[in-house]
Amino acid sequence: MMEIQGGVDFLAEERKSAKFDVDAMKIMWAGGQHQFQVADRMARLVASDPEFNKEGRVRLERRELIKNTLRKAAHAWKRINELRLTEEEAQQMRLFVDEPSFTDLHWGMFIPAIKGQGTDEQQRKWLPLAYRMQIIGCYAQTELGHGSNVQGLETTATFDPETDEFVIHSPTLTSSKWWPGGLGKVSTHAIVYARLIVDGQEHGVHGFIVQLRSLDDHLPLPGITVGDIGMKFGNGAYNTMDNGVLRLEHVRIPRDQMLMRVLQVTREGKVAESDVPRQLIYGTMVFIRQTIVSDASRALSKAVCIATRYSAVRRQFGSQNGRETQVIDYKTQQNRLFPLLASAYAYRVVGEWLKWLYVDVTKRLQDKDFSTLPEVHACTAGLKSLTTSATADGIEECRKLCGGHGYLCSSGLPELFAVYVPACTYEGDNVVLQLQVARFLMKTVAQLGSGKQPVGTVAYMGRAEHLMQSRCSAHKAEDWLNPDAVIEAFEARSLRMSVACAQNLRSFSNQEEGFQELSADLAGAAAAHCQLIVVSKFAEKLRKDIPGDGVKEQLEALFGVYALSIIKKHLGDFLATGYMTPKQASLANDHLRSLYSQVRPNAIALVDAFNYTDHFLGSALGRYDGNVYPKLYEEAWKDPMNQSVVLDGYQEYVRPMLKLQLRNSRL
Amino acid sequence: MMEIQGGVDFLAEERKSAKFDVDAMKIMWAGGQHQFQVADRMARLVASDPEFNKEGRVRLERRELIKNTLRKAAHAWKRINELRLTEEEAQQMRLFVDEPSFTDLHWGMFIPAIKGQGTDEQQRKWLPLAYRMQIIGCYAQTELGHGSNVQGLETTATFDPETDEFVIHSPTLTSSKWWPGGLGKVSTHAIVYARLIVDGQEHGVHGFIVQLRSLDDHLPLPGITVGDIGMKFGNGAYNTMDNGVLRLEHVRIPRDQMLMRVLQVTREGKVAESDVPRQLIYGTMVFIRQTIVSDASRALSKAVCIATRYSAVRRQFGSQNGRETQVIDYKTQQNRLFPLLASAYAYRVVGEWLKWLYVDVTKRLQDKDFSTLPEVHACTAGLKSLTTSATADGIEECRKLCGGHGYLCSSGLPELFAVYVPACTYEGDNVVLQLQVARFLMKTVAQLGSGKQPVGTVAYMGRAEHLMQSRCSAHKAEDWLNPDAVIEAFEARSLRMSVACAQNLRSFSNQEEGFQELSADLAGAAAAHCQLIVVSKFAEKLRKDIPGDGVKEQLEALFGVYALSIIKKHLGDFLATGYMTPKQASLANDHLRSLYSQVRPNAIALVDAFNYTDHFLGSALGRYDGNVYPKLYEEAWKDPMNQSVVLDGYQEYVRPMLKLQLRNSRL
Repeated sequence: MMEIQGGVDFLAEERKSAKFDVDAMKIMWAGGQHQFQVADRMARLVASDPEFNKEGRVRLERRELIKNTLRKAAHAWKRINELRLTEEEAQQMRLFVDEPSFTDLHWGMFIPAIKGQGTDEQQRKWLPLAYRMQIIGCYAQTELGHGSNVQGLETTATFDPETDEFVIHSPTLTSSKWWPGGLGKVSTHAIVYARLIVDGQEHGVHGFIVQLRSLDDHLPLPGITVGDIGMKFGNGAYNTMDNGVLRLEHVRIPRDQMLMRVLQVTREGKVAESDVPRQLIYGTMVFIRQTIVSDASRALSKAVCIATRYSAVRRQFGSQNGRETQVIDYKTQQNRLFPLLASAYAYRVVGEWLKWLYVDVTKRLQDKDFSTLPEVHACTAGLKSLTTSATADGIEECRKLCGGHGYLCSSGLPELFAVYVPACTYEGDNVVLQLQVARFLMKTVAQLGSGKQPVGTVAYMGRAEHLMQSRCSAHKAEDWLNPDAVIEAFEARSLRMSVACAQNLRSFSNQEEGFQELSADLAGAAAAHCQLIVVSKFAEKLRKDIPGDGVKEQLEALFGVYALSIIKKHLGDFLATGYMTPKQASLANDHLRSLYSQVRPNAIALVDAFNYTDHFLGSALGRYDGNVYPKLYEEAWKDPMNQSVVLDGYQEYVRPMLKLQLRNSRL
Repeated sequence: MMEIQGGVDFLAEERKSAKFDVDAMKIMWAGGQHQFQVADRMARLVASDPEFNKEGRVRLERRELIKNTLRKAAHAWKRINELRLTEEEAQQMRLFVDEPSFTDLHWGMFIPAIKGQGTDEQQRKWLPLAYRMQIIGCYAQTELGHGSNVQGLETTATFDPETDEFVIHSPTLTSSKWWPGGLGKVSTHAIVYARLIVDGQEHGVHGFIVQLRSLDDHLPLPGITVGDIGMKFGNGAYNTMDNGVLRLEHVRIPRDQMLMRVLQVTREGKVAESDVPRQLIYGTMVFIRQTIVSDASRALSKAVCIATRYSAVRRQFGSQNGRETQVIDYKTQQNRLFPLLASAYAYRVVGEWLKWLYVDVTKRLQDKDFSTLPEVHACTAGLKSLTTSATADGIEECRKLCGGHGYLCSSGLPELFAVYVPACTYEGDNVVLQLQVARFLMKTVAQLGSGKQPVGTVAYMGRAEHLMQSRCSAHKAEDWLNPDAVIEAFEARSLRMSVACAQNLRSFSNQEEGFQELSADLAGAAAAHCQLIVVSKFAEKLRKDIPGDGVKEQLEALFGVYALSIIKKHLGDFLATGYMTPKQASLANDHLRSLYSQVRPNAIALVDAFNYTDHFLGSALGRYDGNVYPKLYEEAWKDPMNQSVVLDGYQEYVRPMLKLQLRNSRL
């Protein structure tokens, strides 16, 4: 489905060796025929439009860089309207434009927050303005001195009954809003989170719609100090976003700009909870985290695609038919690369399952069934933490797998890493989230035997008695082919780690102190549980029908690579909990190696199945046609340093040095 | 020894809680009184000279950035001469200027290569020119298509007996020299590595001094195409270096510009080895790798210093005397941070030991004693690989430990990471080096029982019989206090992993195929061996006298943290090899936690002992006085985006969007 432009396909041999239907795998990866078609069409639309060119982005000075981003956002908006794209298509288009911008926050946070936390009336007023981009909004929660702990925010919103207004105020330097994307230079409005104060009484943190800038001349309104927080990690990358700082000095807004779906402040200054359950916000959270897991598989798969293609192109040492050996044929390379390839697929499958979970939990919430919420919360928090951390590390590993050239911006990998890593911090710091999962696991373990059956992703804990005693039965490498055997190993490990933590906690008189003291172990138990979720959801997928010649077989091999490479990496857990012997672990390792050999001839086709255009990859190393070196060479000459043969600065600084006749140097 | 400028020391309480003599620790860290004084003086000299200001570097467009670097290099050279600095002082000054530049390659590679590979005559001719910077040199080895495998280089140097010249030529695109620092825009000369061809016969790869640019106008000489290879990872960072591309079209140089210390080509075209042993080059290699290990401890300690100070300043959740809890008091934070603090100290100690090793091996080489070379080669290769990989990962971990703010360039951590990571690739790719270590270990294991006693860092393998059978004797947490117990655990693990690999290799009829197939396990065995080296050299240091109240106690605690955190991280190895039980491992973990409590009150003082100026750290988060937030806030406003209230691009792209009256949108 992908044309090769201008000639030779250096990876043609690799593509011929694939043993499965790549087009069918593309459908599986996209999540269905319809999704594939939308994504494919949008990707091509963007790739073929010169306005969306990404080249040279890493070389732009910040102001030029942002201006370039504004230009693209405006062009995208124009095209979205000209082509009358659906919301789904527009979202895909923004994704393939592949440049963080204020529109991400406008569509991804500002609008959903109004939908989730605004009353019907508020939605009727604000959503049409936002949908038509007659206002541009952002989401101003974190502060200079306050990140993860929302309850620690300092900004206040004090109700003034005289004027029927809220007075929004930043009392300290550390209460300055800090980080919100789109805030720095572009947004006209923000949802500002602040401590609600009515009649001297605090009522927790709530969201308020605050206009920041004039709709006439874009100047900040009175009382508002707003700006960009400066350069962030990497070239291009997130520097296309105007993450901002905001100080509010007694800024007044009408009372009806507090988002009041859950809590209301009346004209008389009465504070009342509505009958809308607070739990509804968890629905939004599940939605956002599902998106984050999908983003993780996308980011990781981009990196893996680049590293896999270049590993097939690059040759070092050894000898294959008189040439050096393809790097991808080295087991050390496979041992680092293929688990990441498998992870990309695993996260993709889990991301699709989370879509189902979101639908399920939304239905339940509408029926006021909150029974699954704690489990859903723990599960999504854990998967967010697991997949984003592994993806950030995985992208950097892919960069290293490309050798020195991965360090060049033209490889695309530095920018991919730099633009991705914030995912480990935003929407819940990964360590904080792990500990939330651990708390839930400790609660679940404590309730075992109480008659209350654990549900969903902790259902396995209901079989505690069996899992505490069972032993791995593998006695040859092939026994590790059986997904049930693999899952039981992960279940036993996870349960035993949780139970061990629970037991150790008992020796503390103060449970909270105990939790603190043992938190590193608890985080380990949480990670084990989350890896189990991925493994079992992947296995669940494999139990279903998957169309396409050889597609399921490939996914089975990747399932094995994912699971067994985790056993290898976290061997200590599996052995310490006594579920398996070192000999059985060694058999798992043998089987893993044989799976690498199975993946090898399919590797290029497996990354082709992501269906990424060269535009989207943005990498000289990851080119579809494998014609890497001329492209790297060509890119080099585009550096502004090469515009003059003799460097600016030579006359001033280098020549005098060369011509200096040193007489008195002690060197 | 460090003054606080302008007021309050927010970390004063932390400093008071230290239980050791920080000044004495500074001497230990520097490697002695003299070294401390030189470093301290040079650091202050640089920090107090406004010409060396580092602020704003991350915001400069590439040409401005390099010009700024040239300016600093010229100023440093001026100061070095004015102050008549010694070579040691000059080197320290360049280090504290803290900006990669062509001078690094000139002093660090070009000059040492001439010293190591040039004949006495060549040294007499070229070194004075280089010492006075009347020429500027670089080191052109790697090619676009060839990195680690020097024997795969394609550039040729063909002897022309007619003219008594070598003809240096790049026959293909992939033979373009690619990556050499200083090559792109600045150097006047390069040592070009090329395949020597005399009378149609190949004689391996050798170094040739090639003039690149005119000393009059800096224009490239005929036949030479040279330029910069473009943007690299990160803001500022290594982009201050003009890594270059070079193509040579039949460039002629006089015969005496081949570096002929080891191999000579005579006027008549005879190729003859001199009586200088080839092994001498290993001396240089040991020297360079010793530098790399010292650099690793320096880079890691910078990151750790920033993360530790900010962890003491930053508060999140919980409650301590009515305020949120200092992040450094969380065990999850300690569990990630303190092993890195311990690693920084461990690598520092190993770096000092490598200095001794260099002296020792140089003496032996002069006496034509090559007996220790294979062991020294394996040891230094392994330590380079271990310390650079752990440092790169450790810096990124420190960045994450600073939460969202670590992502801002003003934290200093993005640049520190970006500028450091190439160390994993240059001077030997870390995986390639690990496999070299593994090869040596397999050889050593094969020779056990042959009567040949292993020496140096593999001496412990001589006690194979004992180590294969011994069992860990710990039965309470405190038993892990004993360094001998710790070392034996590491020895047993390392030996057993090597022996297991050797046994598995035997099942392959083709040993080379077996080595390939098992290479991931072999790399694991090599890593285990290298961690043992660090642990035992650290323990060796602790057996000596170390001056200063409480200094040794602190180092003992850090030794424990380093070793036990490795046991925790690589638990699978320790359990799979059967040396210890899960219960004993759990005791080690208990002891590790108690060591964290021991380190905690000393943490700030332990990073103060690095004696880094705020200039050198270049971090708003790592400030000595802990006054973080006002500095972050102040830095933000310096972004050029904030120079105008309304962003350039608003009129063109944002306003039309806001004012567009959409009629036909389907959204």
